[in-house]
Amino acid sequence: MEVRTADILAPWNHLSQENVVVGFVDTLLRGTGQVMFQNNPITGLLFLIGIFYNSYQFGIAAVIGLLASTIAAMLLGADRNLIRAGLFGYNGVLTGVGLAFFLQLQWSAALIVYIIIGGVFSTVVFMALANFFSTWDMPALTAPFVLTTWLLLFAALLSAHLPTGSLINPALPKPNAAIQTLLRPLPIVPLGAGVTVGNLLQGFFRGIAEVFFQNNLVTGIIFLIAILVNSRISALFAALGSIVGMITALLLLGADGNAVYNGLYGFNAVLRGIAVGGVFYVINWKSGIYAVLCMIVGTVVFASLATLLSPLGMPALTAPFVLATWLFLLSKAAFHVLQPVPLAEVASPEQILRAQHEKERAVAGPELAT
Amino acid sequence: MEVRTADILAPWNHLSQENVVVGFVDTLLRGTGQVMFQNNPITGLLFLIGIFYNSYQFGIAAVIGLLASTIAAMLLGADRNLIRAGLFGYNGVLTGVGLAFFLQLQWSAALIVYIIIGGVFSTVVFMALANFFSTWDMPALTAPFVLTTWLLLFAALLSAHLPTGSLINPALPKPNAAIQTLLRPLPIVPLGAGVTVGNLLQGFFRGIAEVFFQNNLVTGIIFLIAILVNSRISALFAALGSIVGMITALLLLGADGNAVYNGLYGFNAVLRGIAVGGVFYVINWKSGIYAVLCMIVGTVVFASLATLLSPLGMPALTAPFVLATWLFLLSKAAFHVLQPVPLAEVASPEQILRAQHEKERAVAGPELAT
Amino acid sequence: MEVRTADILAPWNHLSQENVVVGFVDTLLRGTGQVMFQNNPITGLLFLIGIFYNSYQFGIAAVIGLLASTIAAMLLGADRNLIRAGLFGYNGVLTGVGLAFFLQLQWSAALIVYIIIGGVFSTVVFMALANFFSTWDMPALTAPFVLTTWLLLFAALLSAHLPTGSLINPALPKPNAAIQTLLRPLPIVPLGAGVTVGNLLQGFFRGIAEVFFQNNLVTGIIFLIAILVNSRISALFAALGSIVGMITALLLLGADGNAVYNGLYGFNAVLRGIAVGGVFYVINWKSGIYAVLCMIVGTVVFASLATLLSPLGMPALTAPFVLATWLFLLSKAAFHVLQPVPLAEVASPEQILRAQHEKERAVAGPELAT
Repeated sequence: MEVRTADILAPWNHLSQENVVVGFVDTLLRGTGQVMFQNNPITGLLFLIGIFYNSYQFGIAAVIGLLASTIAAMLLGADRNLIRAGLFGYNGVLTGVGLAFFLQLQWSAALIVYIIIGGVFSTVVFMALANFFSTWDMPALTAPFVLTTWLLLFAALLSAHLPTGSLINPALPKPNAAIQTLLRPLPIVPLGAGVTVGNLLQGFFRGIAEVFFQNNLVTGIIFLIAILVNSRISALFAALGSIVGMITALLLLGADGNAVYNGLYGFNAVLRGIAVGGVFYVINWKSGIYAVLCMIVGTVVFASLATLLSPLGMPALTAPFVLATWLFLLSKAAFHVLQPVPLAEVASPEQILRAQHEKERAVAGPELAT
Repeated sequence: MEVRTADILAPWNHLSQENVVVGFVDTLLRGTGQVMFQNNPITGLLFLIGIFYNSYQFGIAAVIGLLASTIAAMLLGADRNLIRAGLFGYNGVLTGVGLAFFLQLQWSAALIVYIIIGGVFSTVVFMALANFFSTWDMPALTAPFVLTTWLLLFAALLSAHLPTGSLINPALPKPNAAIQTLLRPLPIVPLGAGVTVGNLLQGFFRGIAEVFFQNNLVTGIIFLIAILVNSRISALFAALGSIVGMITALLLLGADGNAVYNGLYGFNAVLRGIAVGGVFYVINWKSGIYAVLCMIVGTVVFASLATLLSPLGMPALTAPFVLATWLFLLSKAAFHVLQPVPLAEVASPEQILRAQHEKERAVAGPELAT
Repeated sequence: MEVRTADILAPWNHLSQENVVVGFVDTLLRGTGQVMFQNNPITGLLFLIGIFYNSYQFGIAAVIGLLASTIAAMLLGADRNLIRAGLFGYNGVLTGVGLAFFLQLQWSAALIVYIIIGGVFSTVVFMALANFFSTWDMPALTAPFVLTTWLLLFAALLSAHLPTGSLINPALPKPNAAIQTLLRPLPIVPLGAGVTVGNLLQGFFRGIAEVFFQNNLVTGIIFLIAILVNSRISALFAALGSIVGMITALLLLGADGNAVYNGLYGFNAVLRGIAVGGVFYVINWKSGIYAVLCMIVGTVVFASLATLLSPLGMPALTAPFVLATWLFLLSKAAFHVLQPVPLAEVASPEQILRAQHEKERAVAGPELAT
């Protein structure tokens, strides 16, 4: 599968080196793919298709954010290799779609300018955090998106030009207030509720789709295929993340069944799964279990941040992913059963595994020769 | 006194090197002692006795958390010396007792799993923060406990399986709302209220007991003896912390007299006293005054964080200790009247003093010889 | 102009080297000037005159905080050069005036002790943050003031001795609640409202005066002159900041017109302008545009932090300046169109420019000679 993808991409990669416009499109697509750590233009294209399938308006917002952050990086003279790998795109595309979603697609000049400012700012924040975390060889993850989108959404509450909608509803948390744990598509209707295969599949795929705030079954299927195009290991851990997030929410917490159905306990675990399971640690049984541990803890962190933000009525975005993953990565040097991947060597899990095997062979080689 | 303690411990230490089970018990006891920076199994044992004296249920929760964090560190292959010094125990034991306290001992499978997850997570957070702060040779203090317990408690509000109790009551802060500053055992009853010797002694010892969330006079007395077994200097600054916390709350702030009686303004100052007074700075008159300054400021920080967390109804835990102490330690390089102790050389205040004197003698020696 | 200022200052500088008292007064004045990055005693004197002009009580609070932070640094043995440059004064003077303002000048022994503790604490926090950020050669900016004042103000809510006033009013944010965007002097009165030259000038100068929490037109004029005495470039960017803050608030956000009139959207942008425009980057067209970008984004951040703090009823202080500027400075290494100024070489924008030209001449010189 991988080999075939590489074959398909070979002429495109050649063209993107030669032609400036193709190169720019390639940069944009890789930027979209990097939201789930997939440096692959086909993955990015499929992500965009998945978003446009759910709503062309979200698609447009995503592209505006993507363009703003990428062009800002070019104008500011950022490192060309980082730009080409899409590292100045993934926060912009998320900021675009995130602002459009929580400002409820009420298009106006202010919203468009706002998305552009968000995209540009996400590029500044990315470089700031990349510099900050370089001290520990740690990735910024989607923290630039989270910080940028939070700052812009909080500000919208004091704005006459950027009406927030029914999604933003500041209220004090009510501890354990009559939580309906039944897995169900709608908050009140009991029809079709329960742990049925259908409901679990809905929760599973929506959990993947919600990484881009797309509450749509088909979009989730497209996203999973998009990851699979680039890496089977990432696809496996994305799926595992959505499942573990759901199980933790249902069994341990007894969380709201409507939130679980709509994938809200899943999308952060999907990202934690991909990141810890193969991208930032060499994948093996031990790091696999560590990734599952990160998924479980991080699912609790999702509920935690949702509570923390309730007085502002604000969404947790991918902060539960960022926070839990940072903690599980920062501890890397100390736990001898894990093999961290230096940031400069991050690639697809399969490539990392192959490089690791070659290193081991290189070490073992001379011994065999003697 | 110290010499005697060392004599008593000699055969135990020998046994704990030889026998794996004794070594493991020793690790657990040192982990408990490290909550107040005392790397001594007798201190840890007395701490546990103090907790069990107040409530065997808190004792059980403490031990579950302690086991979870310590065993997790072993399975993850953490540094053996750090494990043996109890550095993977102190956050776990606090997390166990903290979760049990604020989830009000409503035992269930979910609570037990929750405490285990908390203990394991505290070990990951400890290594993450230790790595982060190694850049400045700074200790993680009890930040792993605070972060872990906050994240788990916030999440419990959205859970049907983990009922929070009357202690967690989200409300907007009411500025200067009819505060009853009279020192008293109960919020309303005026009987026995006032700055009496009895009330001050209650506040003093409960301030020490509250380090482990134990609101009990006798437990406070046991804890003070436990510290004294390992270090007279630490015991002195623990006592000073409880006193300064009380005085600052009563005189400067005019704080709620019931909170002061129950030691709530004391326990963070106890920890600040021990940490700044002899453990992370070589103790002398100047660092002693610096420690008192840290106690005063930190007591204000306690009221501050209590206000900050009131919209969530959440407790400040030992965050006022962590925040104030970090600031008073991070400034170490710049203030020439203070002698910071490198992290690798941290021991009991008495051992640090002795090492310091030997260094000075070594420097002075050759000069005298000439 | 600069040369003349230097001429006027020459005898004073000489005297301040010789005479301890004059040297101490010079330190205090430079500390006040450093609030806007102006290491110049005349600037500092004019700032104090501006404050006393508005209210002698604020002036007294400012001086108490200034004395407390500076003397604390001396007693703790901080670096003499840093003290003499006023780096231990600017957070203290702001803490003094900030506490007096938000505790509404209700003088008592508790308030005076509180301001002194605030000043001393701001010195500890300054050294702590300076040490923390030295890893990235980054400045602490006014973060020590913000952190100290927040911690002390939050605590006042639980105090019977430190009544907060009508300015501190905890409430949940009400999204887009009937915002009156009309530029006007008072919240309700429609008289004189609108985008008139008078109202714009009021907002412009009050935006500069609010850096010290002085809502006064004349004080703003005095402050602008004070900056001009030391640096024309800083004065230009201060003015630009106040203008851009106002425009962003009015056009992009549609913010509350009474807040804009009183300079609340301006003062953080004034500081961002001075910092990014010439002090921490060598000024040229590109860094100038970068500074304007920082002003725009930071104005959004002001509204954002105001929302974030509304459940506590707390002010954003200069946190929007600190947060936005840190992000725009931390990204320095990565954007090749910008020339960051190393912290050790920070001076007035004019001196930085001159040093830069000399460096370029030194590099170009030998080539021309050949």
